[in-house]
Amino acid sequence: MPNYRFFDTASTTKCCESALKALLRFSSEEFAHPSSAHQMGRTAAQAIETARAVIARAFGVPADHVIFTGGGTESDNLAVYGVAGSHAARRLARAIPLEIPARFLCSDIEHPAVWSAVDSVTSFGFERRFINMLPDGQPDLTVYREQLAPHTAFVSFMSVNNVTGAVLPVEELCAMAKQSAPGCVTHSDCVQGFAKVPMPRAGGPVDLVSISAHKIGGPKGIGALIALNPGVLDRSRFRPLMWGGGQEEGWRGGTQNAGMIAAFGTAVEETLANAEKSRRETAQLRERLRSRLVQKNLLDPDPSAALTRGTIRWLSPSSAVPQVVSLSLPGIPSSITASRLEERGCLVATGSACSSGRSGPDRVLQALGFADELASSGIRVSLCCALGQKDVDHLVDALEASLRTSSS
Amino acid sequence: MPNYRFFDTASTTKCCESALKALLRFSSEEFAHPSSAHQMGRTAAQAIETARAVIARAFGVPADHVIFTGGGTESDNLAVYGVAGSHAARRLARAIPLEIPARFLCSDIEHPAVWSAVDSVTSFGFERRFINMLPDGQPDLTVYREQLAPHTAFVSFMSVNNVTGAVLPVEELCAMAKQSAPGCVTHSDCVQGFAKVPMPRAGGPVDLVSISAHKIGGPKGIGALIALNPGVLDRSRFRPLMWGGGQEEGWRGGTQNAGMIAAFGTAVEETLANAEKSRRETAQLRERLRSRLVQKNLLDPDPSAALTRGTIRWLSPSSAVPQVVSLSLPGIPSSITASRLEERGCLVATGSACSSGRSGPDRVLQALGFADELASSGIRVSLCCALGQKDVDHLVDALEASLRTSSS
Repeated sequence: MPNYRFFDTASTTKCCESALKALLRFSSEEFAHPSSAHQMGRTAAQAIETARAVIARAFGVPADHVIFTGGGTESDNLAVYGVAGSHAARRLARAIPLEIPARFLCSDIEHPAVWSAVDSVTSFGFERRFINMLPDGQPDLTVYREQLAPHTAFVSFMSVNNVTGAVLPVEELCAMAKQSAPGCVTHSDCVQGFAKVPMPRAGGPVDLVSISAHKIGGPKGIGALIALNPGVLDRSRFRPLMWGGGQEEGWRGGTQNAGMIAAFGTAVEETLANAEKSRRETAQLRERLRSRLVQKNLLDPDPSAALTRGTIRWLSPSSAVPQVVSLSLPGIPSSITASRLEERGCLVATGSACSSGRSGPDRVLQALGFADELASSGIRVSLCCALGQKDVDHLVDALEASLRTSSS
Repeated sequence: MPNYRFFDTASTTKCCESALKALLRFSSEEFAHPSSAHQMGRTAAQAIETARAVIARAFGVPADHVIFTGGGTESDNLAVYGVAGSHAARRLARAIPLEIPARFLCSDIEHPAVWSAVDSVTSFGFERRFINMLPDGQPDLTVYREQLAPHTAFVSFMSVNNVTGAVLPVEELCAMAKQSAPGCVTHSDCVQGFAKVPMPRAGGPVDLVSISAHKIGGPKGIGALIALNPGVLDRSRFRPLMWGGGQEEGWRGGTQNAGMIAAFGTAVEETLANAEKSRRETAQLRERLRSRLVQKNLLDPDPSAALTRGTIRWLSPSSAVPQVVSLSLPGIPSSITASRLEERGCLVATGSACSSGRSGPDRVLQALGFADELASSGIRVSLCCALGQKDVDHLVDALEASLRTSSS
């Protein structure tokens, strides 16, 4: 494997040393089942509770409000189907009149784990609304207000968009939902936003938050759904996605992997401890990226002008987090640019990596109102403090060479 | 951690060397997202496909009939809710008349992942039937036949019971279901049975099979649902449990952990290669256990006689797999015996380890018709070829000492 420059940390990250150590320890030495009553089982169970306490502390909630899941997608699906499954059951049991459909609502730029789950509830006869977002990642509040209705059951907005890095005003949007539909459950997919922006707080208008370990130096296959509001985990209104041996207070059955959970806990601790420094350094890298593109006259100076071939358009809003930069090279398909950059040792994403095998215009860029020509030519550059200015300069050179190849 | 003798492999196993190696490789060096289009992503994706081919080959199915999940519990829930979710949706959309409930049926000794999932569908207005099993793990066929009805939608029988090691005639039972209700989906939880007994075959009466890595030397948190029948994965009749980025042919969204999947694949290969030898050696250990208990006059000679304090009753049927032995020490609560054995360096389970924090009589032993006094005093001894005759002798001495403590 050649020594790539990895500009794809918004897609996934390498396990940090302490996470690897935890993973190994509970896979080989102390491998027992955490539900086992014996000493080896208790050791595994204690490691889980230590990690749970770390995450609970980060959100200011009691430990039993942290439900470990098999990843961000499961957390998001548990949020959506916790509500949808409960509604479906109550309708079939005629506890809710069949004629009143519940409404499920999320932004049109959600991760597929939320977007597809919300989309899928229509087959239960429920309504779904996707709220259109403006290019800066903010919703049109008039449209949003119109879509809120008293029968809204579920509302979800991500904290940071995974394609452009746009920061959404999650608490404001959830507060509006609670005003229109006091009984609705509000959720925020914070998989991309965790440790990049302040998290929704306990006692605020956000009921549930999803996070995932592999975006922050932990392993893939472990995540959490956190209940910020004590009332939301109510068995008459919220339903497990997986039934089993009563783990996670009955909210998620299945043998827990103590190593993955301990690795998650240690990754959360390290990431939060370094968040401020990491953000500052990454912002400098982003500034370097922009200024080098400007110096080389590669950046389209006027985003309102017609598209120019041979230039690069910066799609991320100025308020975006520094870790995620969306660029577009009009007229060149994303996959072409990505593979040219790869030939030059730079790994970037075409849109988001989380959609398996999709091609064509990026759904999120389209939903943000970018023209198809931009949405088909977008690449996502992830920045992180493991990269240096030389890496960024190398990327800019590779982008320049890639543009030249196209125009020659 | 003292050097315990681990008689608890039916609960979970240590990761084998090759599984650990795969886990590490894809967590640190080649950590990319398997859905990423770049080379690092493709390497991870290839490792997943190699493991998928190994498992597909073991069941004689095409590779795309293997759905990787977050473990045995998720596989079981996907089987139950693949059918239940689809039925609920079609009823709410009035594609099925509301008045015809679907019937979900499983044995009364299923793992909680199946049992609780089947139990939970009643809240959608569906019928559920738990089939009572006899002490040898066989169903009363007259009762079973009575419960099969044309509106049966789902039938599930485990291949090997995780508390007693009883082997169930899964193919025969599923064939009976298909005769009575040709449209039903049949499932077998083979998490405990895999590599211990022959697996259901493709083209037979079993539609779906669940397996899990951590029972066979792979990591916790990874499993598979395998479609043995090409028609069962039909989107109009089977529904994903997790919606997301289209991974696993759309049947299970979520970032795949290439390391865990590769570890699963290598654990399957090793386990199958050693299965015959392992079974033979384990059978010798079980014979040693029984003969030492007899020699020491600890085994209750007449299972039909009244219970005698100070003796041990062997609950597993003679046809059970050698890896799982259920014993009961009448009058002594399971947890007491387990902790006395632990003091003497032997780790055993009280019933199954997969139920978090339960106490009281074991549900499975009760369902098999054992008296409460036996069901409250059961321990599960797992045998495997990592143990030797000396370990078994040590366990028998520890059991003897434990009985003496109680009678003194």
